[in-house]
Amino acid sequence: MTLADQPPAAALVLQTLLQHGPLSRAEIGRRTGLTAGAVTKVATSLMADGWITEGGRPVTERTNGRPATPVEVRPERALFAGVKVTGEELIGVLADLTARPLASRRVRLDSRDVGTVVLAIARLVDELRTAAHLAGTADLHGVGVTISGDVDSQLGTVQYSPFLNWRRVPLAQLVETATGTPTVIENDVRALTVAEQWFGAGVGLSIFALVTVGAGIGAGLCVAGRVVSGAHGVAGEVGHLPVSGTDRVCTCGNTGCVEAVASTHAIVEQARQATGDAELTMDGAIRLAHTGDPAVRAVFARAGHAVGLALACVANLIGPERIIISGEGVASYDLFADHIRQAFVDHAFGAAVDCDLVVRPLPFEEWARGGAVVAAQRVFAPAK
Amino acid sequence: MTLADQPPAAALVLQTLLQHGPLSRAEIGRRTGLTAGAVTKVATSLMADGWITEGGRPVTERTNGRPATPVEVRPERALFAGVKVTGEELIGVLADLTARPLASRRVRLDSRDVGTVVLAIARLVDELRTAAHLAGTADLHGVGVTISGDVDSQLGTVQYSPFLNWRRVPLAQLVETATGTPTVIENDVRALTVAEQWFGAGVGLSIFALVTVGAGIGAGLCVAGRVVSGAHGVAGEVGHLPVSGTDRVCTCGNTGCVEAVASTHAIVEQARQATGDAELTMDGAIRLAHTGDPAVRAVFARAGHAVGLALACVANLIGPERIIISGEGVASYDLFADHIRQAFVDHAFGAAVDCDLVVRPLPFEEWARGGAVVAAQRVFAPAK
Repeated sequence: MTLADQPPAAALVLQTLLQHGPLSRAEIGRRTGLTAGAVTKVATSLMADGWITEGGRPVTERTNGRPATPVEVRPERALFAGVKVTGEELIGVLADLTARPLASRRVRLDSRDVGTVVLAIARLVDELRTAAHLAGTADLHGVGVTISGDVDSQLGTVQYSPFLNWRRVPLAQLVETATGTPTVIENDVRALTVAEQWFGAGVGLSIFALVTVGAGIGAGLCVAGRVVSGAHGVAGEVGHLPVSGTDRVCTCGNTGCVEAVASTHAIVEQARQATGDAELTMDGAIRLAHTGDPAVRAVFARAGHAVGLALACVANLIGPERIIISGEGVASYDLFADHIRQAFVDHAFGAAVDCDLVVRPLPFEEWARGGAVVAAQRVFAPAK
Repeated sequence: MTLADQPPAAALVLQTLLQHGPLSRAEIGRRTGLTAGAVTKVATSLMADGWITEGGRPVTERTNGRPATPVEVRPERALFAGVKVTGEELIGVLADLTARPLASRRVRLDSRDVGTVVLAIARLVDELRTAAHLAGTADLHGVGVTISGDVDSQLGTVQYSPFLNWRRVPLAQLVETATGTPTVIENDVRALTVAEQWFGAGVGLSIFALVTVGAGIGAGLCVAGRVVSGAHGVAGEVGHLPVSGTDRVCTCGNTGCVEAVASTHAIVEQARQATGDAELTMDGAIRLAHTGDPAVRAVFARAGHAVGLALACVANLIGPERIIISGEGVASYDLFADHIRQAFVDHAFGAAVDCDLVVRPLPFEEWARGGAVVAAQRVFAPAK
């Protein structure tokens, strides 16, 4: 399952091949600092167990002028299911070792009851296996479930999920029992950040942030190649930075939170107040803003301003090379964009303003893929 | 100078001994993961070059029951001078490999002209050597100069120092030429954070923050054992988090900054407005607050509230195990403390509130020692 039976340097070699492969053995040595003998030993062992294979175009080595056959990862050697749980549905993806999606499915949740959700996850994983023509559980190496809220991935426990109204749910164990497959759980934004770090807009960056705007507003912070999880499980809570004034109360009970003015719910609520239309939906508010309704446009402007202040906080505190902006909210990004950027530019301190702001619409399938990537990580960094 | 002539694992062994020594060779092996053979080789080489010595009470090894003589670092093997530069004075400390101060000196600066300051630093380093009875430059292994502002320690350049009004000053090279000793420069708060990480209230913590309150308000963030320096040289700028309302303009030109209401200058300015006394000093404002003057107390309350919001931002974003509060401002901490704590508790999200807030009065000599520690770091992690 993990690389437990492989030589200690196997994880390092496999990671190097995943990020830069195919590579010749000599090139692996240069990139990892391992001796030629160590690389040969690890490569032979990984090949015997089917993790890597010789392939790719032969390259002429600088060292001795002879052509060398590169080795590369066998993506199908290990498959992983990723499942994102929202309050309304499950989104599932089956992916290989290189995070390439082989199948995806969505199912509606009839209930937020823990037992029902666990059963639905197990059924979804089963469907994904069938869809990808997998014979048995043998080929599925891990399940990664991602969920919004306070998730302790070490303990495998959802400490608190506001959308599901769960507290202290030992979800990893429950899903592992139901699926018969090793399961990890992770906060959904952190999992998406890991996916972006390995296979998305964070590749090659030592420090970046992913900020998601939508029903909730959160962030994953990647510092020195690792996603920050916080000493007490809390990190990246940009939605609860106290920058937005004191007139509105957040779902967390405080005033000043970015979410209190910029979450989907908050925008709809403010647009209803501004128009006097108690039935107005988010789509309706977007339409009104697009037709130029000044009151509704002001609501989006305020939301954008608050998000921009939050981005400035992130930039001033950790100085990321790039901030990726995603989440359902980017569908109406044109209504916020100028206000986000203006508030960011005004409040980023000194060279922090050089941080690259990038908008990436990432559908929920990408979030689910984050679960698969987190499950795959366990192969390279087995839990202690 | 560095460990360049030592085996590759020498830095790791020396670090382990600095943090946990004295240790037996077997214990070094257990803590570093090095083989017994590798430890013996490194220890022999480090001992031959005077970095470590046998010493400490013999311990009975679990492995074979025989008593083993531990080895420990020879603190005097390498000495470092640390200098903190403020707008008014230089504070210098001479410290050994374990950061123990052997001598300290302060000198007033007559001018903020670069040449004058560099010369004064060289003279101060000389005085420190004399005070510690060092014969020549031979025993001094490095100089670390720390300075508030945007410091690029890789380039060795002060990009911008507001207090000195310096821009793009190649300070490391200038001081190195003037002292004849390898010199590193670092942002003063980051250097103090490194010192706290190695020898202070940050020892053993994987993630902590040091927030300094005074003439400026800044922070050092230590994540996964490394002090965050930001992709563009900016990080930890808590003084410029936009949380304090729009009625006051910060020295950086923006509104909303914590510094705009909570720096020493901002407090004095607000206290003057509140009392109508245009000559009021910080000491005078503190005295008035202590006598119960409601208008001046409100100024401190607002400053404390802003600092508390900034701490909540730090906690919500990176989730530190501990936040150390220091800087000149803590001398009047009793006037802020309740407001800082209340704002922090109100706005820390979920378990982030479990972050430990610790007040540490650290005199400028400690800040200077940070420079010596940063210079010593170069021994363990030579520049590439």
